[in-house]
Amino acid sequence: MRDDMLTSVLTELNGTSADIEASGVISTDGLMMASVLPAGLDEDRVGAMSAAMLSLGDRTAQELNRGGLEQVLIKGDNGYVLMTYAGEEAVLTVMAKSNAKLGLIFLDVKRAAESISEML
Amino acid sequence: MRDDMLTSVLTELNGTSADIEASGVISTDGLMMASVLPAGLDEDRVGAMSAAMLSLGDRTAQELNRGGLEQVLIKGDNGYVLMTYAGEEAVLTVMAKSNAKLGLIFLDVKRAAESISEML
Repeated sequence: MRDDMLTSVLTELNGTSADIEASGVISTDGLMMASVLPAGLDEDRVGAMSAAMLSLGDRTAQELNRGGLEQVLIKGDNGYVLMTYAGEEAVLTVMAKSNAKLGLIFLDVKRAAESISEML
Repeated sequence: MRDDMLTSVLTELNGTSADIEASGVISTDGLMMASVLPAGLDEDRVGAMSAAMLSLGDRTAQELNRGGLEQVLIKGDNGYVLMTYAGEEAVLTVMAKSNAKLGLIFLDVKRAAESISEML
């Protein structure tokens, strides 16, 4: 039931923009709770890399006096990965194309993270 | 001489916006090449965290099919850390306030990274 609600938020998020290729909700210890991923993208790999990036991001934010971590964005020459806390125990990871409009992605992801946070 | 040129690019970058609090050029193995940091922010700490984030960011970009890493952005509730490759062997790390206009920061940092890349 809760899985279905999470999946429906992700499906809606992926539908808001053709630039969003994949999304998933991951517990802060790296286990996938729900995901809408294209073929060829492995759930476990997305979960593991998200958890690792957030853990190091947390530490970096602390060490460099940036306060509590909210988001990590990775830009590669083939697209973006955006990881956003959805409450304290889960993370919303979104993958977007390299030509994505970042302002819109930030807005849509923020709204989705708020919805997810209320469900958990 | 090259140190002076790097420091002058960083001083100019920090001067473009009151929202930029600190910047540094770091070799990809984590050693500081030049920096303009406020008191209380340790060079070695900035270098070490930048190198660690980029190393994991490289791997994440590869594992999630995002191509070669260009940038990592960390958003904390007290501000941003933005790490951008300046050529292949150095990284420009910039710290900005939480109310910074990200679009302007991205633009100024991109220009500074290009200048630095030409000097190395």
